[in-house]
Amino acid sequence: MITFYRNTASPNVQKISLMLAETRIPHEVQSVDRGPDGTFAPSFLAISPNATVPAILDRDSGMSVFESGAILYYLAEKSGQFLPTGLGPRTEVMKWLMFEVANVGPVMGELYHYLLIESQAMTECHLPRYRDKLTRYCTLLDHQLEGQRYLCGEYSIADIALYPWCDILEDIAEIHVGDYANLSRWVATIGARPATQATHTTRPVTAGP
Amino acid sequence: MITFYRNTASPNVQKISLMLAETRIPHEVQSVDRGPDGTFAPSFLAISPNATVPAILDRDSGMSVFESGAILYYLAEKSGQFLPTGLGPRTEVMKWLMFEVANVGPVMGELYHYLLIESQAMTECHLPRYRDKLTRYCTLLDHQLEGQRYLCGEYSIADIALYPWCDILEDIAEIHVGDYANLSRWVATIGARPATQATHTTRPVTAGP
Repeated sequence: MITFYRNTASPNVQKISLMLAETRIPHEVQSVDRGPDGTFAPSFLAISPNATVPAILDRDSGMSVFESGAILYYLAEKSGQFLPTGLGPRTEVMKWLMFEVANVGPVMGELYHYLLIESQAMTECHLPRYRDKLTRYCTLLDHQLEGQRYLCGEYSIADIALYPWCDILEDIAEIHVGDYANLSRWVATIGARPATQATHTTRPVTAGP
Repeated sequence: MITFYRNTASPNVQKISLMLAETRIPHEVQSVDRGPDGTFAPSFLAISPNATVPAILDRDSGMSVFESGAILYYLAEKSGQFLPTGLGPRTEVMKWLMFEVANVGPVMGELYHYLLIESQAMTECHLPRYRDKLTRYCTLLDHQLEGQRYLCGEYSIADIALYPWCDILEDIAEIHVGDYANLSRWVATIGARPATQATHTTRPVTAGP
């Protein structure tokens, strides 16, 4: 049994919701909130020292994992799904997983922060810089999806990591995914998967499927 | 034979320099520069579609890899070094590798950008926010290094990914690594490794503007 620690339905949390729904690994959800003094319980910090969700505790193995990219890796290995075994195909997935972890996620996080949390710190320099980056990422993803259903052929943890961000690009970054034929087809394809549909009640508020 | 594409000796590039020096994988270095029109050659973009270095091409397998985290993973698998084989120990390494890729690298990148490239966009809100994050990361790393030589016991790609950033924290973020006993001991230990010493001639120039 996996305990899945989460709070809001952020894209990082949604990655793990999708992965658990796809793999059907038995799990329980535990909400994580700050205490009255604004801090997290030591028992949670022992699992997620950076005080971030998502995090998991695998009660079968005793393994705790933080960082959504590492959790996806662990659940893929545990279930034998969504990460190919050969070094070549596996590295293809790792490239696009790392592309998300190092680029799309952090840029969307910064944009979200300056748009919605600390908007007084957003200067006229910031918004175009983040949007330009995201627009470039969309072009790359659209190119990578040319002629294939998913980013690395078969559905993988790279798709699962990138989908929740791409699904809210329009809302957060005002980037029209519909301008990218392959990317918008891929968003629709993943959105129609039964596991994605099953997580819809916990999805971030978006423009719709 | 690996072709290692690099330009400046950025921390991301230095990770791969360290890994190649540690593993002694035969390689050649190729400098990557923009052409007169400001763009990269299509042959390089086929290897690194996000137009970033480091990137590698393994001429034995034909495999090209971009994103420093994915390159470290590939070289660890290819060499059988610095990434344990069991799922538990391997996931420990992936947690700290992803922690670097998703947090330390992007925050240092943002700080570097606003300090040195686009300083007019740096408001009084930015610097404390990035420094607070980095200070917290130092505390986490210091705690993780309590009682052990390296982050996950044996030297691993998690150490290799984090070291180049920690080595320049003082210069970029004005964070004194010496304030963290375990972290400063770890920086000194890695700095003294023969492979690290061998890469010193290509270390980033950090003190200047």
